Amino acid sequence: MQVIACIPQISDIHTGCLTKMSSTEIFMQRLVDSRSQQAPPALLSPSIHTESEYIINSSPSPSYSPSLSSYFEEDTRSSFRNCTSRESLISTTSEKVLLMSSEQQSSVVQPLLTDLYQISMAYAYWKPNKHQELATFDLYFRKNPFGGEYTLFAGLDECLKFVRDYKFHSSDIEYLRASLPSYIESEFFDYLSTLNMNDIKIYAVPEGTVVFPRLPLMRIEGPVIKTQLIETTLLTLVNYASLVATNAARFRSAIGADKTLLEFGLRRAQGPDGGLSASKYCYLGGFDGTSNLLAGKLYGIPVKGTHAHAYVSSYESMDDLSERELCDRITGQRRPFADLCLQYLNVIGPVLKILPDETNKGELAAFISYAIAFPTNFLALVDTYDVLKSGVPNFLAVARALHECNYQAVGLRIDSGDLAYLSLEVRAKFHEISKKLNLSYMEHFTIVASNDINEDTLVSLEKQGHSIDSFGIGTHLVTCQKQPALGCVYKLVELAGSPRIKISQDIEKVTIPGRKNLFRFYGHDGKALCDLLTRIDEPEPQAAVRMLSRHPFSEQKRAYVTPTSVRSLYNLYWADGEIKYSLPTLKQIRTYVREQINELRKDHKRDLNPTPYKVSVSDDLFQFMHKLWMKNVPIGELE
Amino acid sequence: MQVIACIPQISDIHTGCLTKMSSTEIFMQRLVDSRSQQAPPALLSPSIHTESEYIINSSPSPSYSPSLSSYFEEDTRSSFRNCTSRESLISTTSEKVLLMSSEQQSSVVQPLLTDLYQISMAYAYWKPNKHQELATFDLYFRKNPFGGEYTLFAGLDECLKFVRDYKFHSSDIEYLRASLPSYIESEFFDYLSTLNMNDIKIYAVPEGTVVFPRLPLMRIEGPVIKTQLIETTLLTLVNYASLVATNAARFRSAIGADKTLLEFGLRRAQGPDGGLSASKYCYLGGFDGTSNLLAGKLYGIPVKGTHAHAYVSSYESMDDLSERELCDRITGQRRPFADLCLQYLNVIGPVLKILPDETNKGELAAFISYAIAFPTNFLALVDTYDVLKSGVPNFLAVARALHECNYQAVGLRIDSGDLAYLSLEVRAKFHEISKKLNLSYMEHFTIVASNDINEDTLVSLEKQGHSIDSFGIGTHLVTCQKQPALGCVYKLVELAGSPRIKISQDIEKVTIPGRKNLFRFYGHDGKALCDLLTRIDEPEPQAAVRMLSRHPFSEQKRAYVTPTSVRSLYNLYWADGEIKYSLPTLKQIRTYVREQINELRKDHKRDLNPTPYKVSVSDDLFQFMHKLWMKNVPIGELE
Repeated sequence: MQVIACIPQISDIHTGCLTKMSSTEIFMQRLVDSRSQQAPPALLSPSIHTESEYIINSSPSPSYSPSLSSYFEEDTRSSFRNCTSRESLISTTSEKVLLMSSEQQSSVVQPLLTDLYQISMAYAYWKPNKHQELATFDLYFRKNPFGGEYTLFAGLDECLKFVRDYKFHSSDIEYLRASLPSYIESEFFDYLSTLNMNDIKIYAVPEGTVVFPRLPLMRIEGPVIKTQLIETTLLTLVNYASLVATNAARFRSAIGADKTLLEFGLRRAQGPDGGLSASKYCYLGGFDGTSNLLAGKLYGIPVKGTHAHAYVSSYESMDDLSERELCDRITGQRRPFADLCLQYLNVIGPVLKILPDETNKGELAAFISYAIAFPTNFLALVDTYDVLKSGVPNFLAVARALHECNYQAVGLRIDSGDLAYLSLEVRAKFHEISKKLNLSYMEHFTIVASNDINEDTLVSLEKQGHSIDSFGIGTHLVTCQKQPALGCVYKLVELAGSPRIKISQDIEKVTIPGRKNLFRFYGHDGKALCDLLTRIDEPEPQAAVRMLSRHPFSEQKRAYVTPTSVRSLYNLYWADGEIKYSLPTLKQIRTYVREQINELRKDHKRDLNPTPYKVSVSDDLFQFMHKLWMKNVPIGELE
Repeated sequence: MQVIACIPQISDIHTGCLTKMSSTEIFMQRLVDSRSQQAPPALLSPSIHTESEYIINSSPSPSYSPSLSSYFEEDTRSSFRNCTSRESLISTTSEKVLLMSSEQQSSVVQPLLTDLYQISMAYAYWKPNKHQELATFDLYFRKNPFGGEYTLFAGLDECLKFVRDYKFHSSDIEYLRASLPSYIESEFFDYLSTLNMNDIKIYAVPEGTVVFPRLPLMRIEGPVIKTQLIETTLLTLVNYASLVATNAARFRSAIGADKTLLEFGLRRAQGPDGGLSASKYCYLGGFDGTSNLLAGKLYGIPVKGTHAHAYVSSYESMDDLSERELCDRITGQRRPFADLCLQYLNVIGPVLKILPDETNKGELAAFISYAIAFPTNFLALVDTYDVLKSGVPNFLAVARALHECNYQAVGLRIDSGDLAYLSLEVRAKFHEISKKLNLSYMEHFTIVASNDINEDTLVSLEKQGHSIDSFGIGTHLVTCQKQPALGCVYKLVELAGSPRIKISQDIEKVTIPGRKNLFRFYGHDGKALCDLLTRIDEPEPQAAVRMLSRHPFSEQKRAYVTPTSVRSLYNLYWADGEIKYSLPTLKQIRTYVREQINELRKDHKRDLNPTPYKVSVSDDLFQFMHKLWMKNVPIGELE
């Protein structure tokens, strides 16, 4: 084998051909290995995720160095046209994952992103000098989303950044001053303008933890004015993050660990950073990548994508091709690529029982042009005209011509029609062609499907049978069609050392009073048994010690439990004006999510009538709560 | 009558009392008029909206001047406690509405907020030097949301700002360079780094226009690389804005024009600026205000709010009150306010047939404290313990005591339970008390309801009968529960002067090719008859001239139409690198929305089986389109 480097010189026989190869051996090995690498990692496996490499993968290549641009000289652009290296075939996921706690955050996350009533209450606390009383708030939700029995907690990192950066802008103060009743004392605004969150504390379960209704996901302690002021923003940051992460985990669960799931939802998201949050938290919840470049840049998420229908429509016929040649990947020789494609279409047409004239030649030209631009990443969108009669034969002709030039096509994407049926038909054609051409890898071309896919579609596709390798999912994933809001709430549970309870005619809305700790009990199989809330000053429950766990509301529902192991779920994340706990990267959280879901018994996770997970309280907490409850519901007089 | 000014001096008999009154006459008149001012304007009336004044209204008061703070001196804080002026009673909506086209925009709206495939396509266009070909894209949707037959177009202003500010950051270029295959020429990145949108044109229907499926809401013309690059971001900015504006209009339609609708959705929105967009576009679609302070600051939307359950829970008993006095609004005399409240509770209890002991005294203390802080804006959340047995009697006792001090309470809010039943019961109690106390205004206290309200709830409340004046609506409004995405698409319709069509097995997905104009036909009653798409070079349709309008897909569906008047729907908004058209304020768009909805026949708007509005094409466009369609579907060979 021979290593060929095309040095760009006008006099070079390989004019216009640039290759930055290291060794052909590596390529040949990749050719053999490439299928095995396309399998995404097992969802529940804690192993590091290796990215599949089809479609354009925008994860910065580890071989990237800033000096790359020095390969290119001024005014040599035309010399580099139509030339490739094989380097990108060896694209692997960058291990460089940006810290989520970077300074990058949407500019709208600021103290004024809150409800007016937080400011009204702040004033009403401040006026009688009650604002420094120490309060504890619990942030929790009352019902798992999507008819399921578990939820992923997400958004903590952004909450901590918000609290860290909490500062009213002078224009905020001017706005408030002008907006509130004019009798509000100027000193109140002075107070607001210097307010920070340095004397509050935030305890929380780690981001990515599997959580359940009524568990306080965050416990916020500090002066009531401050802990109250941050309510709305914390809820905003946790609610959607947790919802969409959970949605992603459910999609992953529906399709299994061996398929690739890509989030394509930016254009349909609710607001621009709805799209950004979706990309981030879908990755956290188990997706493999996103189409969203900004998410890639900010969070280090692998970014994927190919081309749109518009690109295909932009070519009407073969005459639109201004560039018809492609350099051979190995020899560097210029090859008549467009003619090769037409030639192979005549070979492939009869095998697929279509007339070569039947395929749309604008589509073919578009495929050829795209393959010339991205010969190492050729993945064609095949449903602009007719998947089986035009898109697939055109794709295969180009794939065969690429093979002739020592490249290997990646696959195709279907964006309309009956995805199960089409994928099976397409795979059958791949099979036929790979046999006919004696190119076995062609049987395994990647089939990407995208078109209004939701969780139920995935479940149904699995039942029907299909041959899709990768799913691009947008609208239903990011907008959480099944249930577009989680419904986290933020409730006062203690003030000035005294517990508070909110009573409601709706029993689910009654709060569990007082500062509490939170423990997860595990059985001998390592699976989570139940969660237990205790009063803050109770002794911690111990492994192998039998204790009574009680339903928080129903007196009759109680059970003894002897855990094999016990985990305390809270960490102190914010105190003394700093983030106290080293925050994991997004990728680390993603791995933790898989472990967390793995800790959950299967019956809690099944899609039909899953078993509710038990969230219980200690007997001490039960007694304490019910006493307070009784006290707050006075006995009426019947007439 | 006498004007009393309390000048804050320690020696003053009115120590601690500050009033900034102009004349008592005005107040007395307001007392009489205040009810008539609480009615929000008719939805469809084009008149200027006058805000109702209950709850804390954060619209900057017109009487505000920066010198306001000079009323307050250093170290006099305690002197001003517990004292009020009546100024805020005369709070009216500020006419100062910020331009939507202000520089304020979420930091995430930037060129990299896009799908990777836009960059891949950009390169694939650039490489064969095809990128300067002139393209036309249409942005449209295929189906009205929420089972309705109309949609409001929104988001245009933000699209124009995005296009105006389009510029890749150097770190974006570095990210792309590191992420894309390494054989991509450096010149391509150089090209991207200097790229702007100065040579594209954007035609659009005005923001707030009522629109229908298949109407191109925006027509974008220019070099294909640029018009393609902005696809995802334009879709992101239009999709949710239009969806939530339409949702708001439907909520408005369900409840009628005489109720107040407030958007309270920030905490449940999909991402922080999902919340911000929701506030903005719900106002545009017909809501009267929001709880979101940042939306108030950025867009000049009236902001409303009072207090939360936590505030009520923060008081356990009357002993928690550190401040028990309130200055009389007129005389400035300090009154034993807490004692007055207790005293009136003993009067009110028997009338409402409850024991005065039965009401929660923590709740009463919270109400008293809140009334002392906001005596001119007292609106109490009454469902922390028991609406009828605790919240309402406590509220009425405080309201009666406020009256004693020459203030007038605003009303109460119910946030749980059966809203129709509770509102009627509460109103009955108001009626009883107002008769008993001979204070007729108390019968008309504002009842605000909030608790998981959606469009169907509103329809049902209207049918059942209720006595709610004002609705605070969150989750279902902002997340658009009924349909969380609109599904706008962006399709190439012309390239290099040649029309493009996208064929699909799903007929609804076939595009209408070529550059088109858009007209709305009106009948003699001023109502919209139908919309008509024409080819760009066709003569404009004329009023009183009969013409053939055709269904774009069904050959048989056609009709002659003779419009009484014709309106061309497009304006050229962006060309030569500048916004060409003076953009209306958010408030002006809101008024335009009402006019637009008014132009629509009732049968298109009804909630059950509304009549579809006709979107037709000219005969010329029909022939042109179908010829191209046939050409692109070649005849196959049956075997």
